Order: sequence, then C-alpha cells, then structure tokens
Amino acid sequence: MLAELSARIAPLDVAAMTAARRRLDSLTKPSGSLGRLEELAVRLAGITGRAPPAVNEKTIYLFAADHGVAAEGVSAYPTAVTAQMAANFLNGGAAINVLARQAGASLVVVDVGIAADIPRHHQLICMKIAPGTRNFLYEPAMTRKQALQCLEAGHAAFRPCQAAGMGEMGIGNSTSAAAIVAAATGRPPAEIVGRGTGIDDSALAKKIAVVEQALARRQPDGGDGISLLCSVGGFEIGALAGAMLAAAAARVPIVLDGFISTAAALVAVRLCPRVREYLIAAHRSAEKGHSIALAQLNLRPLLELELRLGEGTGAALAFHLLEAACRTMGEMATFEGAGVAGRTAGA
Amino acid sequence: MLAELSARIAPLDVAAMTAARRRLDSLTKPSGSLGRLEELAVRLAGITGRAPPAVNEKTIYLFAADHGVAAEGVSAYPTAVTAQMAANFLNGGAAINVLARQAGASLVVVDVGIAADIPRHHQLICMKIAPGTRNFLYEPAMTRKQALQCLEAGHAAFRPCQAAGMGEMGIGNSTSAAAIVAAATGRPPAEIVGRGTGIDDSALAKKIAVVEQALARRQPDGGDGISLLCSVGGFEIGALAGAMLAAAAARVPIVLDGFISTAAALVAVRLCPRVREYLIAAHRSAEKGHSIALAQLNLRPLLELELRLGEGTGAALAFHLLEAACRTMGEMATFEGAGVAGRTAGA
Repeated sequence: MLAELSARIAPLDVAAMTAARRRLDSLTKPSGSLGRLEELAVRLAGITGRAPPAVNEKTIYLFAADHGVAAEGVSAYPTAVTAQMAANFLNGGAAINVLARQAGASLVVVDVGIAADIPRHHQLICMKIAPGTRNFLYEPAMTRKQALQCLEAGHAAFRPCQAAGMGEMGIGNSTSAAAIVAAATGRPPAEIVGRGTGIDDSALAKKIAVVEQALARRQPDGGDGISLLCSVGGFEIGALAGAMLAAAAARVPIVLDGFISTAAALVAVRLCPRVREYLIAAHRSAEKGHSIALAQLNLRPLLELELRLGEGTGAALAFHLLEAACRTMGEMATFEGAGVAGRTAGA
Repeated sequence: MLAELSARIAPLDVAAMTAARRRLDSLTKPSGSLGRLEELAVRLAGITGRAPPAVNEKTIYLFAADHGVAAEGVSAYPTAVTAQMAANFLNGGAAINVLARQAGASLVVVDVGIAADIPRHHQLICMKIAPGTRNFLYEPAMTRKQALQCLEAGHAAFRPCQAAGMGEMGIGNSTSAAAIVAAATGRPPAEIVGRGTGIDDSALAKKIAVVEQALARRQPDGGDGISLLCSVGGFEIGALAGAMLAAAAARVPIVLDGFISTAAALVAVRLCPRVREYLIAAHRSAEKGHSIALAQLNLRPLLELELRLGEGTGAALAFHLLEAACRTMGEMATFEGAGVAGRTAGA
C-alpha cells in the first residue's frame, strides 16, 4: 500500500502555477497586494493542477485514539475523555462541529483506537486497531503490523474532496507527538514538550522526563516513519499520516491543524518526502514544540491565534483563507476587462 | 454632531464580558484553548453588551475620494484609477466584492470626494464634498467646514449592523495616512511612509520628502482630529472616522482594515478616546507604518497576511474570525451538558 501510494504522489504542476501567477497579475489590484493569499493561490494551483483552483468540497478528518502513556499522568484530563469527546463530536457539540459548520466542511470521525466502546452512530467510522496503544515508557507503542494498519485506516477513510483538514483527539497524544518531533528533529524533549491541554509545572516536568526516558529506551529511527510510529506513535497519528499520503496521491491540499497533526506530517514525509509539497500549515499553535515541527517541514502557518485545542479546529478556520485565495483569483475582474488604468511609468 | 455622538459612546459592558468568560470556561474544551478567539469573544460581548454576542449582519463601508497630493507623483497609479475602481466596486469585480460575498457581508460604497463624475448607480451613495482634497504640500488639505462635512458623511452613511468593516479607496491616500500617523505619533515620516500600491525607491524618497515638508508647513496638532484632517487629511479618511464614531455609539464592533483605515482610527480616537475600545484590528498590513499606528492604538491584529490592498479586504477576511468567536461561544456544548469529565486533580 505504501509503495503504491507513494508512487502516485506527483510533483506540483508547474504549468498551473505559472498560469496562476499570470492571472493574479492581471487582476484589478496592485501586483502582489493580496500578499500571502497570492502565494497560497499559486500553491493550490500547483497542488490541484488547476488555475484558478477551487476548494468548495472541504472535509475535516478527525481520527481518535487512546494512548497507553496517558497512565503516566501526562495529561490534565483522564483517558475517558477521548470517548466522551467522540460522543460530543457525533452530537455536534464540540468546537470542531461549530467551525466545520461555519466553514461548510464535512466532518469524518474515525475511531482508530479509543479505549472504550463507543455506541454505534451513523456518522462514526469504526476502524479500531486496538483499545489504545501500549505505554511506550515500558514497551513499543505498537507493532509493525499495527503501524501499517493505522496508516491503511487513514488511507481507507480518505474520500474525494478539494481540501482535507487533518484533526485528531486522544488524551495523551501531545506526549506521543512530542516524542515523534524530538526523534525526527533531533532536538531535546525539553525544547519540544508543552502543556498540552494545560498541565501544571510539575506535570510538565514529568512529561518531559517520560519523553526523555522513552526515547532513550525505544531508540526510534527519526528518519523512518514506521519506526517512529512503532516506538512512540499513536493510532490516530498513523491514521493521519495515511490520510495525508492518500490526499497527496489524489492531488488534494492537506491542511494541517496543530502540533499533533504536524507530528503526523513528519511521519508522512519520512514515508514519502514528496508529501511535503502538498502540506499547508493552518496555524501556529500555542503548544511549545509546534514551531520546531513546522520549521522542520519548512512551513509557515497562515494563522497565529494561540489555539491549542486540536480536533482540526485550526484547519477549519484556515479553510476560509484557502477559499478566499481561490475565489479572488477566480472571480476578480482584470484591468483590461474593467477598464482600469495600469501603473504610471516611473513610479 | 461630534459632541452628541461622543456623549453616546459608552464604556464596554463589564457584566457581559464576565458572563462571556464564565460561559467560555464551561464549554467542552480545555480552558483558554481557543486562544485569541476567546479574547475576541469577550471583547465582542463587551462591545455589544451580549453574551454570547452575534455578528450575523456584517457591512463593509468603502469610502472613496481623491487627493490633491497625488499630483506630486507619490502613487504608482494615476488619479483616474479612483473613479475606475469605484465603477469596478459597483460592477462587483474588485477584491472587496469577492471577499464581501464570501463573508456574507453587505458592501456600502460612498463617494465623498472622487475627482471625476461617477455615473449614477443604485448602489452608489453620493456624498461628494469636493472633487478631491487640495494638495497639502502647498495648502491645507481641506477647510474646517469640509472636515466636519466628511465626518458627518461617515456618520450619515452608517446603518445598523452587527459588525462594521472600514475600507477605503483613493489614489494618494497612503501619503495622507502617513502624514496623519506621523503627526499623531510624533515619529519621523521616514519610519512611517511606505510603498503604498508599490512605488519604487526614488518615488518612495520623494513621498517621504513630501510628507516631511507638508508636516513642517502645515504644523498639524497631533492631538486634535480636526486639525489632522484639515492639514493633511482626506475626505474618505474623515468619513471613516465619522463612521467609526457612529458605530461605537451604536455598540457595533469596528473592524479596521489596513494602514489608511488605522490612520482614520487615530483621527476618531483623537475626537473621542473611548472609540478605542470598540476597535478590532483585522490584520497587519505590509505597509511600513501600519505597525506603528496599531501600536499607538494598542491593537494587536488578528491576521498577518502581508495584504496591502485596502478596500476593506482585510476586514472582510477577519469577519470570519469574529463569527467563529461568536459561534463557538454560542453553539458549543458544556462539559455538564455533554457528560464530559473535567480536569484531573493535580495535573
């Protein structure tokens, strides 16, 4: 599956990007005056192969799973909250429900490893791999077979759309993400581990120690996505990486959310480096290690709102900017068409 | 008019802000995890006096006028473009038309001083004060009577809405705005004057010299809004300030756009300091002096997209974030209502 997907991931469409730049310069505005929206429009043209591009059909993928490492007291909330929040997503009461509705985006909720049984619901996709990962402080988080299963689950959950937001829920997953980012970047855990849902100083010190010890014991290969998942990963993180490979293969823009989503992107890029060109960073999270993970991927986020919620909330907010980039390129009048004079010579 | 409006501008509603904070902390998310959206929601509650607030009815005010100082070669485009772009706004082809449509916002286009005659159009509000200001390098930009007229035009154009975006069009107006910001902040023009629509180095040097000389000759009182307008202002800038006073008096959030809109806010705040509490900075423009003007008003912008287009485009984009702030507060489930566990003690 991995080899087949990777082979289908093509470079960006350079002709579409050139056409996009030419069109942007013909529109009734000073050249370049839409700033980063113009860069974004060009990137979207390259990803989709269309100029102007379109992002009408938007989907938020929300993968949920539990983490054995949560037993170490690394989160401000108990493991039971993962299942409770999954029910909240299905009932429409979470932040991501509100922001997806506002964005006109579909929400796809996938259980890839919640520790509790979730009642069936017509909107819940059940691809549970196991009731949570193992506690990676003491043993590998998952087997190689499970790593491939969660990647495949993400791939299978992906469905055609024009922009894919990548969200997650899982008590303990900022610990897993921090371990992945530390291993993939070689930076010390103390620079990366953050407060997640809002832990205090003593819990933060403990969380840093857990990540340090886990990395010393598990010795993940930071250049190998499967090794990262097996050693210190999470099922939802693997599923996100799989969905990203599927999106890139389908020429669909991948809108990263926060720290966990970006850690998953590091896994995806280790599996297939070309995925990087399909990534759009929605926002810079308040979580400490997010900036390091974004820098490693050479991504500059669109929004800086100090969000630290996950679920895909930042991605849902950023959809508006993707749409603005597409719509200005597609709907604005040209200087010639509108009879507007161009620049004065000299000035 | 000014005294009457100013008297109607009340302080923020502290009780609504307290109720907003309490509600935000009861919702199914870690406390504070929506970051700046939570601050924004509280501010909107204080402005509107409602918790949760609502910003369904959004209007972009777009005031257009010409500038005598454009004769000095301070813009990359000829004066004729102001009228041509006004026609473009009425035909729906400009960036602000696209972004207002996307935001579901109404667009109100007001001619307060375009140098050319614009054909009548059912969507054009004509309140032309004069066909452009005087060239403030040689004489005051406008009379005291005209300054009051453009403030009154802005007031008269304002109509009830739940969020008011403040946009403008006027070839030469970044020169007027730079002179206002320099006079109001006491900072040297070289730190404030920027490239506007995209002038080259030699035109930029000329533009700085024009602002320096004009300030030396006109000697505006930086603490007096009327003096700023008379000396170096623009009719659209005065109209924006008048619309801001009207919005604050009606407890409507004022969404500033870029550099010119923020210069107008400085005028409005000099006329009535309490207006400041009603201001929301949509974005940080690429125009050099914008950060200085925002700092003077103690405003932190929501977006940083390197826009430098004006028209209200940044305000239209920011409406989405105002709506997100209101909708998350209004539509999310509470911990109690959704049966989600709270924080674990200690962590």
